[in-house]
Formats: sequence, structure tokens, C-alpha cells
Amino acid sequence: MIDYSDYTVSIHYDRRLYRQDIAGSIAHARMLGRQGIIPSEDAETIISGLKSVEQEIEAGEFPWDPSLEDLHMNIERRLTELVGPVGGRLHTGRSRNDQIALDMRLYTREVIRETTAGLRGVQRALLGLAESNREALMPGYTHLQRAQPVLFAHHMLAYFQMFQRDAGRFADCYRRADVLPLGSGALAGVPYPTDRHYLAEELGFGSISTNSMDAVSDRDFLLEYQAAASVCMMHLSRLSEEIVIWSSREFDFVRLSDEFTTGSSIMPQKRNPDFAELARGKTGRIYGHLMALLTLMKGLPLTYNRDLQEDKEGFFDTVDTLLATLRVFQGMLPRMELNVPQVTRLAGESYMLATDMADYLVGKGVPFREAHGIMRRLCAHCEAQGRELQELTLDDYRGFCDRFDEGVYQITALASVAARDNPGGTAPNRVAEGLEQARQLLEEAANDF
Amino acid sequence: MIDYSDYTVSIHYDRRLYRQDIAGSIAHARMLGRQGIIPSEDAETIISGLKSVEQEIEAGEFPWDPSLEDLHMNIERRLTELVGPVGGRLHTGRSRNDQIALDMRLYTREVIRETTAGLRGVQRALLGLAESNREALMPGYTHLQRAQPVLFAHHMLAYFQMFQRDAGRFADCYRRADVLPLGSGALAGVPYPTDRHYLAEELGFGSISTNSMDAVSDRDFLLEYQAAASVCMMHLSRLSEEIVIWSSREFDFVRLSDEFTTGSSIMPQKRNPDFAELARGKTGRIYGHLMALLTLMKGLPLTYNRDLQEDKEGFFDTVDTLLATLRVFQGMLPRMELNVPQVTRLAGESYMLATDMADYLVGKGVPFREAHGIMRRLCAHCEAQGRELQELTLDDYRGFCDRFDEGVYQITALASVAARDNPGGTAPNRVAEGLEQARQLLEEAANDF
Amino acid sequence: MIDYSDYTVSIHYDRRLYRQDIAGSIAHARMLGRQGIIPSEDAETIISGLKSVEQEIEAGEFPWDPSLEDLHMNIERRLTELVGPVGGRLHTGRSRNDQIALDMRLYTREVIRETTAGLRGVQRALLGLAESNREALMPGYTHLQRAQPVLFAHHMLAYFQMFQRDAGRFADCYRRADVLPLGSGALAGVPYPTDRHYLAEELGFGSISTNSMDAVSDRDFLLEYQAAASVCMMHLSRLSEEIVIWSSREFDFVRLSDEFTTGSSIMPQKRNPDFAELARGKTGRIYGHLMALLTLMKGLPLTYNRDLQEDKEGFFDTVDTLLATLRVFQGMLPRMELNVPQVTRLAGESYMLATDMADYLVGKGVPFREAHGIMRRLCAHCEAQGRELQELTLDDYRGFCDRFDEGVYQITALASVAARDNPGGTAPNRVAEGLEQARQLLEEAANDF
Amino acid sequence: MIDYSDYTVSIHYDRRLYRQDIAGSIAHARMLGRQGIIPSEDAETIISGLKSVEQEIEAGEFPWDPSLEDLHMNIERRLTELVGPVGGRLHTGRSRNDQIALDMRLYTREVIRETTAGLRGVQRALLGLAESNREALMPGYTHLQRAQPVLFAHHMLAYFQMFQRDAGRFADCYRRADVLPLGSGALAGVPYPTDRHYLAEELGFGSISTNSMDAVSDRDFLLEYQAAASVCMMHLSRLSEEIVIWSSREFDFVRLSDEFTTGSSIMPQKRNPDFAELARGKTGRIYGHLMALLTLMKGLPLTYNRDLQEDKEGFFDTVDTLLATLRVFQGMLPRMELNVPQVTRLAGESYMLATDMADYLVGKGVPFREAHGIMRRLCAHCEAQGRELQELTLDDYRGFCDRFDEGVYQITALASVAARDNPGGTAPNRVAEGLEQARQLLEEAANDF
Repeated sequence: MIDYSDYTVSIHYDRRLYRQDIAGSIAHARMLGRQGIIPSEDAETIISGLKSVEQEIEAGEFPWDPSLEDLHMNIERRLTELVGPVGGRLHTGRSRNDQIALDMRLYTREVIRETTAGLRGVQRALLGLAESNREALMPGYTHLQRAQPVLFAHHMLAYFQMFQRDAGRFADCYRRADVLPLGSGALAGVPYPTDRHYLAEELGFGSISTNSMDAVSDRDFLLEYQAAASVCMMHLSRLSEEIVIWSSREFDFVRLSDEFTTGSSIMPQKRNPDFAELARGKTGRIYGHLMALLTLMKGLPLTYNRDLQEDKEGFFDTVDTLLATLRVFQGMLPRMELNVPQVTRLAGESYMLATDMADYLVGKGVPFREAHGIMRRLCAHCEAQGRELQELTLDDYRGFCDRFDEGVYQITALASVAARDNPGGTAPNRVAEGLEQARQLLEEAANDF
Repeated sequence: MIDYSDYTVSIHYDRRLYRQDIAGSIAHARMLGRQGIIPSEDAETIISGLKSVEQEIEAGEFPWDPSLEDLHMNIERRLTELVGPVGGRLHTGRSRNDQIALDMRLYTREVIRETTAGLRGVQRALLGLAESNREALMPGYTHLQRAQPVLFAHHMLAYFQMFQRDAGRFADCYRRADVLPLGSGALAGVPYPTDRHYLAEELGFGSISTNSMDAVSDRDFLLEYQAAASVCMMHLSRLSEEIVIWSSREFDFVRLSDEFTTGSSIMPQKRNPDFAELARGKTGRIYGHLMALLTLMKGLPLTYNRDLQEDKEGFFDTVDTLLATLRVFQGMLPRMELNVPQVTRLAGESYMLATDMADYLVGKGVPFREAHGIMRRLCAHCEAQGRELQELTLDDYRGFCDRFDEGVYQITALASVAARDNPGGTAPNRVAEGLEQARQLLEEAANDF
Repeated sequence: MIDYSDYTVSIHYDRRLYRQDIAGSIAHARMLGRQGIIPSEDAETIISGLKSVEQEIEAGEFPWDPSLEDLHMNIERRLTELVGPVGGRLHTGRSRNDQIALDMRLYTREVIRETTAGLRGVQRALLGLAESNREALMPGYTHLQRAQPVLFAHHMLAYFQMFQRDAGRFADCYRRADVLPLGSGALAGVPYPTDRHYLAEELGFGSISTNSMDAVSDRDFLLEYQAAASVCMMHLSRLSEEIVIWSSREFDFVRLSDEFTTGSSIMPQKRNPDFAELARGKTGRIYGHLMALLTLMKGLPLTYNRDLQEDKEGFFDTVDTLLATLRVFQGMLPRMELNVPQVTRLAGESYMLATDMADYLVGKGVPFREAHGIMRRLCAHCEAQGRELQELTLDDYRGFCDRFDEGVYQITALASVAARDNPGGTAPNRVAEGLEQARQLLEEAANDF
Repeated sequence: MIDYSDYTVSIHYDRRLYRQDIAGSIAHARMLGRQGIIPSEDAETIISGLKSVEQEIEAGEFPWDPSLEDLHMNIERRLTELVGPVGGRLHTGRSRNDQIALDMRLYTREVIRETTAGLRGVQRALLGLAESNREALMPGYTHLQRAQPVLFAHHMLAYFQMFQRDAGRFADCYRRADVLPLGSGALAGVPYPTDRHYLAEELGFGSISTNSMDAVSDRDFLLEYQAAASVCMMHLSRLSEEIVIWSSREFDFVRLSDEFTTGSSIMPQKRNPDFAELARGKTGRIYGHLMALLTLMKGLPLTYNRDLQEDKEGFFDTVDTLLATLRVFQGMLPRMELNVPQVTRLAGESYMLATDMADYLVGKGVPFREAHGIMRRLCAHCEAQGRELQELTLDDYRGFCDRFDEGVYQITALASVAARDNPGGTAPNRVAEGLEQARQLLEEAANDF
């Protein structure tokens, strides 16, 4: 006789929700007693029984029983063992459908707080890197081709801004998760004079759901978390890619600490950036879990369907993976050393200054497109001769345009950077503003939740 | 000689952005003139040229040239033809990188306004359906099995709430899209005294970007729109699935108007719900476009890479598909007729009242789980005998539990519904509250943007 | 001091590969000894040590050590403990890169065999259902609208064919997985006179890889398995959806056995098709894992990158989920009872015969499109009058077309079915052919691998 | 009065199938005449009418009418205009459901032939590159860190093998697409004595479908094409990534021809590898279309549902994108110039030879792990002193292990490569075998279809 029940059992992953489940049950019992739906002494008995259950779980002494399938039944069964038949009254005025919706919302709120803390940590690390390399120049890239010199700090602040938006998305998700579903029953509401506002207050919810059918079948908040996590992981994958490229001997921009590389067993100078690679690779699994839940929800009729049980494992893994990755970056970034001589040297490559020279010509009255044409010819000329722009004489320059004067020699990487003196530009004073803004954002973040 | 340039050409799809591109260019030219970066008469000439270009495009007389690859070059070339070399000055202090970022943000803001209007329209249609069928009962389902009677209006309001959350997500996305990137240049900022705040004001942006490298490579706002669109389309797919199921002869809950069905060429009573099916099917393409952009962005180093050109077609198709689908539902729902006798009849099926009977026993002091056990045995008894619960005598009932009294006969579908008298429950007065809240939300929505 | 090593550890999931890893190591050791690369007595010592390791693992006595990160290091360490420094010689002429590629290919071959066996089991169950309901008619649907009567057996055989193609895809994947990568070293081959053909023979591989750089970075066979699994799961989701719909009281086509439903705790007649719903929901996770691996592989430069470690968990979950689902269907289908009276009754609904009547008119010389027009008017007439087609008199019929004669009364559901007498059609004799073909395919399947 | 019909219209994309549709109709008409289902002169009339329609379409003179929604109706209407009511007979014994299934299968077969030709072209280009740089050494990478020297030709052949597997997957898909669905009618077969084997022969199909319900709702062959395309595009994205990295000034391994780069408008030495970047970016859209179709098919009940109409646009775009990308690589690769001095120089970096030195010690009887330990210490010693391994004296070497002798100086990049002399290894003679095998595979490919 084959046993198929494994297919429906969820206790191996939903037990993770035990704290939320018990907190919800305690609030529910308290409310039932307060409303006179069950005798208040029964409520007390139940609450004290639930606390014992929680202690058993935390002590690792709880008798988990897979044959009871899920967390709710395990806890309820144990509660009844501990307090007797009165335990059965706990389920008055609720259903597993609104109970699990409650657990998931409580859990989501918590992990958003943790995720945001992780993001703030990564932002702090980026800010630290930027501040401790405030003056370092480096080549800015488009198409992985050197394009214009920038400050390394400016580059770090670009990522700071990405994670700032990520934090905003998680905060928005929090607002929509912060809604009490309990009281929706199986789908239609409950035939008891429950006090949902009291429940919301007890559990710290900002508001209560206003439609029971929606409340038991809504998983938007999970999708929204997973979408925000996907975008966040995408940002981390971009940073990872840069770390991988920068760690190559060819670029040689940064050196990761030993903790965050694995050498070859034989070549100590081979510093494989395994953590960055794994972070990049783990992006896939987070995208995949988003796709999984979107697929699951597609075309499901109202209200609860058992398909919804499948909302958890992918979500949990998304949370675990994202939190772990944020933790890794908080450790890895502060220990990443910038190879200042190398980035400085490459930032000074003359061709990157061609745009500045064109702007210099524009400043002397040459129309924009014409100035570009002149510089294109000049660069081509140098390349053909294997010379750097800086090696040209003023006569050489004037052979291409008579507006050139001595000022052309003041066009350097630093001058180029300094000239980008607009809000958001890479000029040192603008980057200083960016650093200041970043510091302020992190201070405000102290009030995140 | 094979020509490979087709591979890089984007004019066949990016020309859709011509209004945004010209609006951005006019603001830019005005700012350049105002700041004295170019002579103000040149700015005037350019602006008037750009307006001519716009008129030509709208009149269908613009000489689009694929060999110029993209929208920007087409407009710039034509501008220069119209106003002479001074047109070349327009590109002073900007780059195609911040220009396209600007166009996409202007466009995204517009489509969010349209999307929200579409959502409001669908919400109005749902509210209308609910109001015109205020008293209709229907079976509420879990697992596609009849579970408890509910009001049809309650079911409609469940969808109303989903679209309310969707509108919230699009509004959040709007805030993050509402940031001016112009002035970021190719990646590092621009070496001109541009006035970015003036530009933001001219173009109605709430704020300006604070990091140029981030500004030219950020596509979060597109991902966020696509994620919100995916969730919204998921909701529409659920409603579509229900409409398909409800339109089957077996359920026979609703009748779609002829406009939104296609008959068989031969069986007029076959009312294929093609629009609902297509909406359900189009969910896939919206998910797919989200996945496409997430994939594209994965692991891209900073800043601009040509890969980013691929952000548009999927996004445009997402917008078109979602707007079209919202339009269809605004037309289809008001013309969908509820088969009141059928839903009423099924709502009265006696087994669905078993839960209420259990609650009735609980009200008489029977512990919850015990009451459930009694009803389970009672239902099994009836099923074995092929009888409805209502056909039982009081003695029959008392054979299972002596707490039963005459009150058991007052448990009807309507009584069941009325008993769910909690906030968010399906009791008529609660649904009336839900309708009132919905009306208010729609009124507030008049201030959406 | 925070420990980040958790992020890179894989032993909690890659230990699943221990049999494959040890089998590969034994073959490798044997080859090394045979080629004289290591002394043959060392090879013997190593092989006997590896066998001890395997026994320890199977007895649950193996000292797994997470600090050793992965399976390979755990086994190698233990081997050296057991046999001394000679154990270190095992790694001569191979690398973890070709070793893990070998393990995954050995594993993939095994799971393809299991998957195929599962598919055959489901096909057998479908064939059984078809055979035991050989004569049952049912409505065939398009757009979830009744369209034409078909045999229930024909419907079951449609799924049989889908799983037949699935088996074909897995078999194709097997061929491409059946290639020995060992001997590729880290990426460039190995500097020892290894005998790769001997290894292939020992391990039962059909061929050896012909490019070492490809061999260590190729994960196509995993993607191919996951794509085939996605299509297969899609088929299972379609069948699940039908089972869910058919289990509704409104359709009432089938009754699942108690083992495969969960009742409401209170309504025994509520037979929630939880297994079918879960199968439908699990489709998402399989799609998600496919997307995860595709994302991971996108844009990875050659050869091995640590991202590739992330290929396993999703793959293992795909395998587990698919095998479990196939097992469930093998149990669920044979116990699913067709409600023959219900499907027969609905198959006889007159409107579904309209197409046959049109064909009957065509048979009497009426052009196809004209015949359709006549029937459309006739059906509309009946619907307006609330009559079934069968209730019309011959005069009624002739009022629409004078070609009608008594023969029209012989157009019944069974006649309609019988008329579809083409290869692949639903006529009983054709379905009999289909059943016969299915039986033969299953017999041939005995030779699957 | 709003018109919603746009939502269901498909003529703007399904008209692409006109050749397939007409070929199928001609074969069908011929069969109808041959079987006496319609008079053979009618069949002749229809066939000649269809040929006229085809000529009109190819001449651009066909009066496409969106109000007729799809290709089938456009052609049928025009046919009837041209040949009169007899045109209506064409639809005898078929339905739009089996007709579109036929068109898509005919089309898929064609595009598989084209795709395979494209793959062969890319393989030829890779082989060409490998042959014209037969002796060039380069660093082989793991983790984007230099690991061991390899032959550039070996690296190219790694991609050759990937595309070889891709061609195999498309060929397998072809077999499953090569099945005639016509004769399945709407879902149940057709009530006419059609000859499906004759049709299969006329249209060159290898076999006929054996279950009508399956035949009209099966889209596996599209999914299979799209899955194969996703894997193929993943391979192209890996090659693209390498080309992007190799084109950076820091790596400077290759120089793309002007045709396949776009310079900055100003910096001619900036050779943006736009085509490679776009190819990498387009990977996303192909993954997305796969996900879209998988989502669409999930949970669809049998048989035809209108959702299926949505199978086309994503598929067509997948085909167009993949074919265009293969075309680009066929043009780009032969014009890509290897910077031989640069790759040779880097291949000679001493640390990469550490593994070979360890193997050399193993060859002198040092156990594998011990030899590794010695080399690790040696490399660390050199790195600390800033010396290359080659600069050490024999005494230096012997300070670490007394087995070192003069032979250590013969360990060079070329010697390292030559030592990997196993099937599939990078030794010149093995790479020569690989080239020979590649040439043979391309010769055999002449018989692809």
C-alpha cells in the first residue's frame, strides 16, 4: 500500500512560521475571550498552552508529526494535549485559510524589516568605500569601453542609489502587507462578533482587510516582495559582475580579501571571486521563484485553492538567499581594496579626454557636431601614428582647428572630472554632495520601521 | 555585400517616443538659451524647428530614415535640415544616454496615468455589476467546490480590491519614475552650467536624479511597471478564468454579450468567451516581457551598454496589452448578465450550510471540533441516503446531538450570509459598507495624478 | 567574527550525488592503476577505501563535515583517513571541474530512467481508464463549451500521446547526457596518459566528450531535462485542471477516491481535489527552476565559474517534484471513477449535433458554408423556442432546407462519434486502434533504456 | 460605440503563414477531389483559385481585410470572390483548429531548416577562426582568472560543440513537428472519407497524428523549438560576453571589424561591440517568449481554447531574433581579428604553469596533494618577492623539494598545452583531431534535412 500523503505535507517548511502562528493564535484567543465568544478563563488556558507550545518548539522538544501535515494541525493537536478539549475552542471564528494568510503577512513584515536592515548595511559599506577612496579617479565605462574618467566614489554612489530605490520598494510592499486578514474565515467572514480592529492593534497591523474573499486568496504581497527582491538581486548581480571583472588580472582594479575568494589549491595568486560569482548565479533562483509564483497564480479562480500552499518554499528561499547575499556584501565590500595606482593610471588615458576637448571647442564657439568631427579626425590621426593626444604640439592641434590654444593642455582626467559640475555629476564637490546626501539618507533610515 | 545594420536599428519601435523626445529637446533648448550656453535666438530657432518636426510627424509627413537607426538621429537630422547648422547645438550638454532615459521616463509617467485610468474604469464596472446585483446570492468556492453562500456583490468587490492594490503599485512606480535624468550626459555629468531644476520644472518632474552613472543605466522603473503589470494581469487572468468557467453550460452563471463572445459558425448557443480566453492567454506575454528585462539586466556592468536598447519592445507590448485588456474588461463587464435564478438555486444547496450548523451548535455550547464531528457524521448520513439536510426531522437531528432545536431550520443561505457580519464579511450590511468604500475610493481616484 | 562560509557550502545538497561520485572515483582509480599512472596496488587500496566510504554513507555513519564544503572534499578526506596518504593519488589526472560534470551526468541518466518509468506508469493508468470506460461518451469541449461528443477513451488517449512525446524528449536528452566528461581536467585536459574510452566503458557511457573546455562548462543536459520537465508538467497541469473542473458539483464527471481528496473537516461531500491542485501549482516551481538555470547561464564566459554550483538545487527539486507528481497520477488515475450517466447525458445534448447535421446536408449536396448557415438559423430558432433539435418534426426541418429527410433522426451522439471514422478520429473503431497502438507503445517501452 | 474587435484580430501577424496555409489548402482540395468528397473539377477550380490568391499576396495586391480577423478567413473570402460559391467547399472536412495546427507545423519545419543552416554557418565561421589561428596560445580562464594556457582554436571548438548540440535539439524537434494534424477537424475527427496518408505525402510529413483531440491542442513543438532556441541563445550570449570582454582595452584580445562596432561619435578608438551586446541582450526576449508560452499553456483544459492564438507572436519573434543573431555571428566572427601577440604574451604568465609543475613533481613520484602543497608554497614565495617562477634558480626550487631538476625549465606554455594530450585535450595534435572532426560534422551536415 503506497502512501501518497508526502505530496501534501508542508510541515517541513511551514514550521518556520511557528512564532507568527502562535502570536496570531494568542491574539485570537484573547479577542475571543474579550468578546465573550469563549469564556475568558478558556482564553487564558489556551494562551498559556500556546506559550508552552512555543517554549517546546524553541527548546527543540516539540513532537513534530508529519502525519498531521501542517503547522496549524501540529500546534492545535499539541495544544489540546496540553490543555484538554478546551483547546478545540481556539479555532472558533477562524479557518486555516485566514490563519495562514495572517501568518504569511506577519512573516513578510518581519523579513521586510530584516531585508531593509541588510540593504542599509550594504549602503553603509558602499558609503565607506566611497569615503575612504574619495579622491580616486577611475575610467568610467560604457559598452565595457573606457569612456570618461569618473571618481570611484561616484561609481560607488551609483549603487547606493540603486539600493535606496530597493529599500523604497520594500517599504511600499510593507504597507500593502500590513493588513490584517484574520476574521475572513474560510472565505465569507465569520458568524461571531469578533473584533478585528482589536486584533489588528494587538498584532500591530496598520489596517484590516475589507473583503474576506480577497483576503484569503490574495498573495500580491508575496509577489511584490519577490519582484522587489528580483530587482535588488539584479543590482547585486551588476555589482558582482563588476567585482569579477575588476578582480581579473587584466583589469586589476580591486583585491578582495582572502575570506571572500578561494584560491586555486595551487595558485595563491589566483583569487577566484567565488562569493561574487555565487551572488551573480543566485540571481537566477530569485527570478525563478518570482516566475513560479506568477505561474501558480495565473488563472486561479476564487477563493482558496490548494495550489496556494505552493507559495511558501520559493518565497522562503528568496528571503534566505537575499538576506544571505546582503550579509555577504556587507562583509565583502569593506574588505575590498581598490588598486589606486592602476585605476588612476587608466583614468588618465588620453582618448577619454576627447569629449572634453570637444566641449572645450564648443566653449570657444564651435558648433557641437562640428567640434565632434574635429576631435574624431584628431583621434584617428593620433591612433594612426600611435601617439597619445597629450603628445601633440599646439601646431598639430591647430592643423585641425584654429580655435585650439594653450588651454588644451589643461584638459586632464582631473579637470575632466571637475568640469562635470552639475547636480549628480562626477565633479568632486558634487560627489561630496552625494556623500552628504547618502549619509543623511542612512540617518533617516534609522526610522525605517 | 550583406548589410547587418538591421540588427541595430530601432526606429521602427522607438519612433513611438517622438512626443516625449521633442518635449525633452524643447525644454533642453530653452534651458540652454536661458543659461547662456547657447545664444537665446539659437534656442528659439531650435524650438521652432522642433515644433515643425513634431507637426510633420503628426501629419504623417516626416521622412523617417531607417539608415539613421534611431529616433534621436532622425529628429536631429531633420531639425538641421529645417534650421541649418544651428540645430547641431541642441546636443550641447546632453548625450543619447540621458536623452533616452528622459524619453522613457516621460513615456512611463504617461502610461501610468493611462493604466490607472483603465484600472479605475474596470473598478467602476465591477462596482456597477455589484450594485445592480446587490442581493444576488451565489455559492462561494474553495477548490472549485461549493463552500459557503456569498453575495455576488461581495465576489465582485474582491476583484475591486485587487485592482485597488494594483493602482497603488502603479502610483508607487510613478514616484520612482518621476525623476529627471537629463543632465547626466553620457555617464559622468556635463561640463556646462545647465540648470537641471529648471528642466525638471519645465517637464513636470518631482525631482532630479542625484547620480549620473546610475541615471543612465537605471531601468528599475520599467521593471517595476512590468512587475505591477504582471500582478495586474494575473488578477485579470483569475477573473477571466471565472468568466470562462461561469460561461460553461454546466455552471451557467453568466451570459456574456454577443460582442464579447464568438459563436461557433454553426451553434449560436455556443458562446465562446474568446475575449476572456485571450486575456488569460495574454498573461503569458506580460510575464515573459518581465522575465526578458530581468534577464537582460542581470550582470550588466555599469554604465550604458547596448543591451539596454532591448528594454523597449517588451515594455511597449506590455503597455499595449495591458491597456487593451483593461479596455476590454471595461466593455465586457457591464454587458455581462448574471443568471440570478441559477446562482440563487445553487447558493441554497444544503451541504454548504453544514458549517453554519456547526457554528449554531458552538453557539449552544458544543466545542468547536466536536460540533464539526457531529456535522460530518450528519452530512455523511444524508449523503448515504441521498437526502438534503433540510429534509431531516428534528428527531433525525437530535439523533446526532441533543442540542439541536427548531432554530436549525432557520439556517438558510441568506441567514448564513447575514451571519457573516464582520468588517469584510459577506453580510448584506457589510457588503453595503464595501460598496460605499468602493464608491469613495473611486471618488478619491479623481485626484489620481 | 562573522563566518561567511555558509554561502559557499554545498554539502547539504550535493551529498545526494555520493553514489555517482564514488562510482566515478572507482572507475578513475581503476583506470589510473591500469594505465600505470599510479601503482595498481594503490588503485586497489583506493577502491577498497571508496567502498568503505560508500558503506559508511549508506549506514548513516559517515562523518559529514560542512567545513569541507562539498561532497568531493568530504569523501576525499575520509578516504585519506581510511587508507592513508595514498588516497591523495586519486585526484591525479582529474579536477573538481570534470568530476562534478561526471557526477551530474551519471545522476541525470539515472533520473531520466526513473522519469521515463514514471511516465510509462501514468500512460498505463490512462490506458487502463480508457479501456475500462471503452464505450462511454462524453462532451468534447472547445473554449470550455460543449462542442462535439467524443469517447472518454479518446480523451484519455490524447493525454497518452502527450506523455509519449514527453518520453521521447527525455530519451533525446539522455543521448546528449550520455557523454563522459572525465579527463577534461580543470579545463584543458590532463597531462597523463589516461584512457577515457576505458572510463566510458566502465561507467556505461555511449561516448566521450571531444572538447575539454566545453565539457567542464556545459550544462545543456540539465537545461534540456528541465525544459522537458516543464513541458511534461504543463501536460500534467492540463490534466489536473480537467480533474478539478470535472470534480466540481456542476460538472460532476468524475469522483476521485478519498485518498486523493481532502474533505472539508465538516462537509464530506466536499471532495477537494487537493492532489490535482497541488500538481497544477507545482507547475510553477518547475518553470521557475528552468528560468533560474537559463538566467544563471546567460552571459557566462568560459570555462568554469562558481555560478555553476547553483545548477543543482533547482534541478534536484525539479526531479523530485516531477517524479512525485508522476507517482501521484499513477495512484490517482486508476482510482478515479467516471460518472458514466452524467457524461452520457451531456454528450447527448442536441446542439452538439448541429455540425453533424450540417455535414449530413453537405452529404446531400449542399455547399459547406450554406449548410452551416441553415443550421445556424435552425439552432437559433430552437433556442428561441426553448426546444431541442430532436423535438423538431420533419416539416420543421424542411422549413429550413428541403434536403432534410428521415435520416436526420439518426443523427445521435453515438452516430456522430461513429462518423468520425478517420485515423485519429473518435469513432469507436479508431479509438480501438488508438488503444492497440498505446498497448504496443507500452510494450516497446519495456526496452526504454 | 467602441469597437473591441482589435483585441481578437490576428491578421497582422498570422498573414506570415500564407504560403503554408495555401499549400495546405491545395493539398486538402486535391485530396477532397481524389476521394470524391467534392467533384474533382471543383477541386481543380479551388486549386487554381488558391494559386491566384498566392500570386496576389506575393505581388502585394491582396486586399487584406482586418475585419475578417485572420488569415484563413481572408484567403477563403478572396477565394470565393475569385471562384464563386464552389470555394466554400474547400472547408469540407476540416476546421480552423486543424488548419492552423497544420500551418504552424509546416512553418516550424521550414524555420528549423533555416535555423540549422544558420547554426552550420556559425560553426563554419568558428572553424575558420580556429584554423586561421591554429597555433595561437591564449590563457584559459576559470572564474575569469587565468588558469592554464590553451590553444585559441581549442576555445573556438568549445563553441563549435555547443552549436552542434543545438543543431541536434532542433533536429529532434523537427521529428516531433513533422506530423500531419489535418483531418482532426475541430477536435473529434471528420465525418468524411478523407485520406490523411495521402495528405501527409503531399505535404512531405513523416507521419500523421493519431489522436484528434491532442492534435488540435498540442503546441509542444513550439515549446520545444523555443526551449532549443533559448539554450542556443544562451550559448550565443556566452560568446557575446567573451567578445565584449575581449574587446575591452584591458584584455585587448580581439578587434572587431568596423561593421560590427559602433564608435563613439568622437572616439574612433572606442570600438563598442554593439552587435555582441545586442545579441546578449536579446537573450532575454527569447527566454521571455518561452516563459510566455509555458504560462499560456499551464492549466488549459482540452481541446482548443482561444488562448492558443497567443502562441504565434512570441514564436515568430523568437525565430526572427535567433535567425538574425545567427546571421550576425556568421558575418562578425570571420572579420574578428585575434591579437596574437597579446594572447601569446598572457598565455606565458608563469603562475599558470604551477599546475604543470605539480604534475611534473607527481611524475617524479611525489603524491598529488603533496606536490600541490609544494607548489602553493613556491608560488606564495615568488609572489611575496615579486618574481616570476621562471626566474628561480634550481637551488631555489630544490629549497622547496629535492625532486626538482633541470627539467623544470622545460615547462612552458607550449609544453603545458602539448602535455594535455588526451582525447578532448588542448594539445595541438588533439586540437587537430577536433578540427578534423568539426570538418566532418559540417560535411555530414550537408544532409541535415
